[in-house]
Amino acid sequence: MTTHKLLLLPGDGIGIETMAEVERIIAFFNASGGANTFETESDLVGGAAYDAHGLAVTDECVAKAKASDAVIFGAVGGPKWADVPYAHRPEAGLLRLRKDLDLFANLRPAICYPALADASSLKRELVEGLDIMIVRELTGGVYFGEPKEIVTMEDGQKRAVDTQLYTTYEIERIAKVAFDLARKRGNKVHSAEKHNVMKSGVLWKEVVTETHASYASDVELHHILADNCAMQLVRQPKQFDVIVTDNLFGDVLSDEAAMATGSLGMLPSASLGAADEKTGRRMALYEPVHGSAPDIAGKNRANPIATIASFGMALRYSCGMSEQADLIDKAIAGVLADGLRTGDIMQPGMTEVGTSEMGSAILKKL
Amino acid sequence: MTTHKLLLLPGDGIGIETMAEVERIIAFFNASGGANTFETESDLVGGAAYDAHGLAVTDECVAKAKASDAVIFGAVGGPKWADVPYAHRPEAGLLRLRKDLDLFANLRPAICYPALADASSLKRELVEGLDIMIVRELTGGVYFGEPKEIVTMEDGQKRAVDTQLYTTYEIERIAKVAFDLARKRGNKVHSAEKHNVMKSGVLWKEVVTETHASYASDVELHHILADNCAMQLVRQPKQFDVIVTDNLFGDVLSDEAAMATGSLGMLPSASLGAADEKTGRRMALYEPVHGSAPDIAGKNRANPIATIASFGMALRYSCGMSEQADLIDKAIAGVLADGLRTGDIMQPGMTEVGTSEMGSAILKKL
Ligand SMILES: CC(C)[C@H](C(=O)O)[C@@H](O)C(=O)O
Ligand SMILES: CC(C)[C@H](C(=O)O)[C@@H](O)C(=O)O
Repeated sequence: MTTHKLLLLPGDGIGIETMAEVERIIAFFNASGGANTFETESDLVGGAAYDAHGLAVTDECVAKAKASDAVIFGAVGGPKWADVPYAHRPEAGLLRLRKDLDLFANLRPAICYPALADASSLKRELVEGLDIMIVRELTGGVYFGEPKEIVTMEDGQKRAVDTQLYTTYEIERIAKVAFDLARKRGNKVHSAEKHNVMKSGVLWKEVVTETHASYASDVELHHILADNCAMQLVRQPKQFDVIVTDNLFGDVLSDEAAMATGSLGMLPSASLGAADEKTGRRMALYEPVHGSAPDIAGKNRANPIATIASFGMALRYSCGMSEQADLIDKAIAGVLADGLRTGDIMQPGMTEVGTSEMGSAILKKL
Repeated sequence: MTTHKLLLLPGDGIGIETMAEVERIIAFFNASGGANTFETESDLVGGAAYDAHGLAVTDECVAKAKASDAVIFGAVGGPKWADVPYAHRPEAGLLRLRKDLDLFANLRPAICYPALADASSLKRELVEGLDIMIVRELTGGVYFGEPKEIVTMEDGQKRAVDTQLYTTYEIERIAKVAFDLARKRGNKVHSAEKHNVMKSGVLWKEVVTETHASYASDVELHHILADNCAMQLVRQPKQFDVIVTDNLFGDVLSDEAAMATGSLGMLPSASLGAADEKTGRRMALYEPVHGSAPDIAGKNRANPIATIASFGMALRYSCGMSEQADLIDKAIAGVLADGLRTGDIMQPGMTEVGTSEMGSAILKKL
């Protein structure tokens, strides 16, 4: 019997409702008497944590996250916290967790659920069967580099600085993640940067090229400028298998790709740390790609699929339970095939259901 | 009789062929005996300048650009110059011109030519009638901030740094350009940044908000996160009128938007300096959005429309010749309506023509 320790951080807005559906699935697995059980604990993060503690995440919560096998994260933020001090904005909780757990590898699958191909803005033939994995560097670059400040100059003008910073080490480890993943997929990696204007892009391209030569010459490698990548994701997204890129480009390109699939409310993500050399254990956080959607929060209208699929990724990458992960993926595909839709993906002729009905339907398929 | 001094910089690849078509149109205007004539001079830039002078742009060329009423720019770069020293890469010529002429306002219309709506990856109804103006800050941000360097550390690792830097002054002047443009269009501006992770984004949002209050409260202003903007450009591009954003986000978002229109090979851009307080004169450079396309260069296959439309923008913004600019726009729409297409925009049932045939057809419509 293996016990997996999960920390559940629902956060704000619809994160609370979608996490409730994950909890039902966890309870189901625990009750079904398999070889794996889950021990869960919940905590506050984001605006909810700020309201309770004046901090977007507490030290205790970070410690619990480090001690758990996987963190399942909902979403943070909302207009309620528009004016809190910058250091305590809801996003700061997420950013601190990423940094303190050293979750450098953000995996963002951009897949098109066949039942939803028509929901894409792109023509059906361009997205049908689309399956991209975006590997975004998550603990470096302009998100965390110092100096990062606003200073008031003598003449009263302000001057804001952010620092884009990458080292050989950071680029090499994320490149390896991308090559490893590509080997299990289409064996092709596109590395996106702007070496024509950024020195970090020059180093990025150089280190990815060297890592490829020494570590993964069996994988097909393409270098692509980030602006061109943004174009190609619209023009012909199926040309991509794995895309590896930095923190900021990864933020923009993965959102663009997610929207192109037509399956935005459905997409999970995994943020992984390095594997411990002895135990193979790695810290990890799983979260939906969508945000906290304050406008529909608390109305049983949110789509729980992305959060449930994130839990599925946790089973696969943190719990060694890929069979059960496959089950979850199949259950999701199944309810879609049955015509069930939450409001965000509603289409003519389908059956609109709420958050909890969708959760129940997925549970039933398990 | 007004004489306009133009500097023509064809650059590399298809820039040379597409500029030749612009020259024919200039000759036509000069021969037609109107109140405006053009005095043109040409020079090398990019790889061509490097081959001749060992520099991507010479001081003399920069001086000529400063002295001209408008620079018409083709495109630079190609595999031939993949290994030239970084400071002399073809793009460096373009970047120096932007910086030395202080061309801080990059206007990138993303319009969908009705005849080409079907060429878009997006569904027809999402792009038909699309008309966005992206206003990209062009002389600040991570493109030019210092430090910008790669250093080798004691342990042999390298560390690359780029600096994203914005001042109140830089943000205010680009915001004003956006508000001024919006007033002549749909009266709506979206300002895109990442204030949730970047201090430059915090300052950007703050200064745009203040400029709006004091200068343009008649214009509808929306703040949008850059990653969400990348999504919305796919989901529902027609929600946008003017988008104002920084140098790096502008690079990525404008390329994405251009591709979404289905009219990529057709799109011009203008890069404008500040207007002189006394004379009203401003320095300006006009260039197609597409690149140098080395694979089809020299084969009479390039689409000259984007470069011709860039010349049209020069007439409008630098020569006070908006009537003639309208004529050019109409001529372009006319040849498309006639079914003429270069290879890049070829569709079933249309007539494929080469670069010079397309140029001739446009000339005939004038
Ligand atoms: C919430 C925000 C800080 C975050 C980011 O920019 O990384 C989000 O956009 C994401 O992509 O996970
Ligand atoms: C050629 C390159 C330096 C340039 C840029 O990044 O600005 C190009 O992509 C553009 O958008 O004009």
